[in-house]
Amino acid sequence: MTAKQSAMIERRRKLLGSAYKLFYDNPVHIVKGEGVWLYDADGRKYLDMYNNVPHVGHCHPHVVEALTKQIATLNTHTRYLHENILEYAERLTGKFEDELDLAMFCCTGSEANELAMRIARTHTGGTGFIATSFAYHGNSRATFEITTSDIPEDERPDYIATAPVPDPYRGLYTGPDAGEKYAAHVREAIETLERRGVKPAAFIIDTIASSGGVVSPPPGYLSAVAEIIRDAGALFIADEVQPGFGRTGRNFWGYQADGFVPDIVTMGKPMGNGHPLAGMVTRSGIVEEFAAKGRYFNTFGGNPVSCAAGLAVLDVLEQEELQQNALDVGQYLVDGLWSLAEQHEVIGDVRGSGFFLGLELVEDRERKTPATALTKRVLNELRERGLLTGPIGPDANILKLRCPMVFTRENADQALDTIDRALAACLH
Amino acid sequence: MTAKQSAMIERRRKLLGSAYKLFYDNPVHIVKGEGVWLYDADGRKYLDMYNNVPHVGHCHPHVVEALTKQIATLNTHTRYLHENILEYAERLTGKFEDELDLAMFCCTGSEANELAMRIARTHTGGTGFIATSFAYHGNSRATFEITTSDIPEDERPDYIATAPVPDPYRGLYTGPDAGEKYAAHVREAIETLERRGVKPAAFIIDTIASSGGVVSPPPGYLSAVAEIIRDAGALFIADEVQPGFGRTGRNFWGYQADGFVPDIVTMGKPMGNGHPLAGMVTRSGIVEEFAAKGRYFNTFGGNPVSCAAGLAVLDVLEQEELQQNALDVGQYLVDGLWSLAEQHEVIGDVRGSGFFLGLELVEDRERKTPATALTKRVLNELRERGLLTGPIGPDANILKLRCPMVFTRENADQALDTIDRALAACLH
Repeated sequence: MTAKQSAMIERRRKLLGSAYKLFYDNPVHIVKGEGVWLYDADGRKYLDMYNNVPHVGHCHPHVVEALTKQIATLNTHTRYLHENILEYAERLTGKFEDELDLAMFCCTGSEANELAMRIARTHTGGTGFIATSFAYHGNSRATFEITTSDIPEDERPDYIATAPVPDPYRGLYTGPDAGEKYAAHVREAIETLERRGVKPAAFIIDTIASSGGVVSPPPGYLSAVAEIIRDAGALFIADEVQPGFGRTGRNFWGYQADGFVPDIVTMGKPMGNGHPLAGMVTRSGIVEEFAAKGRYFNTFGGNPVSCAAGLAVLDVLEQEELQQNALDVGQYLVDGLWSLAEQHEVIGDVRGSGFFLGLELVEDRERKTPATALTKRVLNELRERGLLTGPIGPDANILKLRCPMVFTRENADQALDTIDRALAACLH
Repeated sequence: MTAKQSAMIERRRKLLGSAYKLFYDNPVHIVKGEGVWLYDADGRKYLDMYNNVPHVGHCHPHVVEALTKQIATLNTHTRYLHENILEYAERLTGKFEDELDLAMFCCTGSEANELAMRIARTHTGGTGFIATSFAYHGNSRATFEITTSDIPEDERPDYIATAPVPDPYRGLYTGPDAGEKYAAHVREAIETLERRGVKPAAFIIDTIASSGGVVSPPPGYLSAVAEIIRDAGALFIADEVQPGFGRTGRNFWGYQADGFVPDIVTMGKPMGNGHPLAGMVTRSGIVEEFAAKGRYFNTFGGNPVSCAAGLAVLDVLEQEELQQNALDVGQYLVDGLWSLAEQHEVIGDVRGSGFFLGLELVEDRERKTPATALTKRVLNELRERGLLTGPIGPDANILKLRCPMVFTRENADQALDTIDRALAACLH
């Protein structure tokens, strides 16, 4: 570590305190971003396989231009008329099934989930929420209550119940009826709430369970849960903060893999390519009680600058056909990683879809023992070799690969080669 | 109303739903902002006396330049090292008393208050909050629970108690000991919580009570409450989302009018001149339990672009001496409004400080009967005459005047003349 890095770390500790964590034993001092590349203060470049927020690439010129233009023209709230919010709401709802016809905007994924939870309570008259185990849904009080990855079961309020993360690799069930069997646990969670005298308001899930370990639910799970939760008079909230906007390649939204339509969809991170833009889409009928009863105003949400960023991201996704790119290059990465698995026994699983992939490292393929310590070494080794990614999952033994959507086959070749060498260096 | 406006309103209703409200009977279609001016689609300009978010003026060139440069260079999260967050944390904590030495960043005032409330609970071990009556503190569940302006007392959770807004014009107490008498109600609120078995975590107040009617607490109130709340083992949270960043003219932070130091200060709206930037400052000791126990990561909070905006706002405030401008021109406005009161019996009170002013309209000066319907007419009349502001207070009979900090004496002359004519038009 350089003296400059050490000095910055010390200033962080003093000014920001210990809640601010850094990645890597040797933290990176990033000064520039461009496409799939991040550059450090010494001019060294890193292939970015971690950051899903700069969705269409770091500093994409079309997004930069749209932001620059609008910032110099007008930035104000939504109680005056403005074209951008209308155009963006039209374009965005156009990306959903017809019944999801209404959009509301805020600034972060936490705020989007907060809003969805408030609306679900007002619409259903229920107060309870069901989340999957080891989920992350935000940093505010209500969203953190359903962040089951961080709050032990005995510290959760009685209006929170959980269902197991529907993991077909490491979880309770495998095989063709895994979806149905996992869904039955949601019915049990509803019964748990009811035994406590709590009426459920909603079930919430990220449609690829990220913190749970980049887990794609088995086929039929999401739609079966939707039926169960609606039978109980509650809503299905799809948290698309991570899988949304074409990242999975196959569909524009993660839930579409299961051929059903949620009641509320929340969005965040990639929506403005780094600009703090988030929102939710729902059926117009669902917000009526909320609009009549509770006041909602978000000072920055849906302002002309945020909407310009959102529009520009949609432009780039469409013009550069990035969903298709995620599908193609994502599959190329998956195939390449499985090839690496032939040489590296430590690779237990490769999963996910498009540019939302998990590479699980295990000590023993049969027993699936998590290779947690090794994963940490591999991540640091990758960083030293110019590839940035991060750990995920209950045992932090999964490499979370969420590259910007402009990641090419050539980038993938470099990534596969780097991962190959890093694994070899750590294992031998 | 033009056909274009009607069509936009209809699109809003359909796409955004009824939670999205518009100002004015004849909503304004704003397309451009510059300094204290907003421009509509027909090229008509409006003097902006409402918007505190574009703190140093709409589209201030220095802020636009700083944003433009950083947007094209890098926008990423805080788990890599970056100079901007350190420089901004240094500059920002430098605006506070020495003991407030630690900053944390998020995107909205709601998020700042959420974070402050979570930290207060973890630090004190208490769960209760005391807010003033008719306060607004945010749109998320926890911050909306203390938004006493919207939630009737019997619908509040048992861990929320209130104290009356310390209003020296219309409230319970006037005279030199009003501060002390109002503060005694906070002691009662603590006792209320304790009777319910709830240990208090914090008292929270916007140091000029905006929703309460632009009320400056009587001298001695804030410091007396700080002593009372600390005696109960709880914290004092100063919500500076509206009064902060020099707006009151006299001090950089609203609480400083009372010569004491809060435990946590939250900030939002003006911080990034419209860019979604918010944060809190506290003593480093207070976040330790929180950092050790609860995870906190805010994806967009404190990113290089947000911090560039924050730094640019501080630059402009300092270089253009805008706190002094708010003090001088604010006093000039107050004097002018009192002069108008000689002709207009309907002016019951003029109050506030700097560019955070309230003009209260009453039917009867003696009985202080709120002139609610008239206020609405006056606001619409002002809009037609090219001046934008809004209503506030429990009876919506107060004009909230929070102009951008670059508002000049010449702007004030025009404003006073317009208000004079609008009042005359509405009254005769």
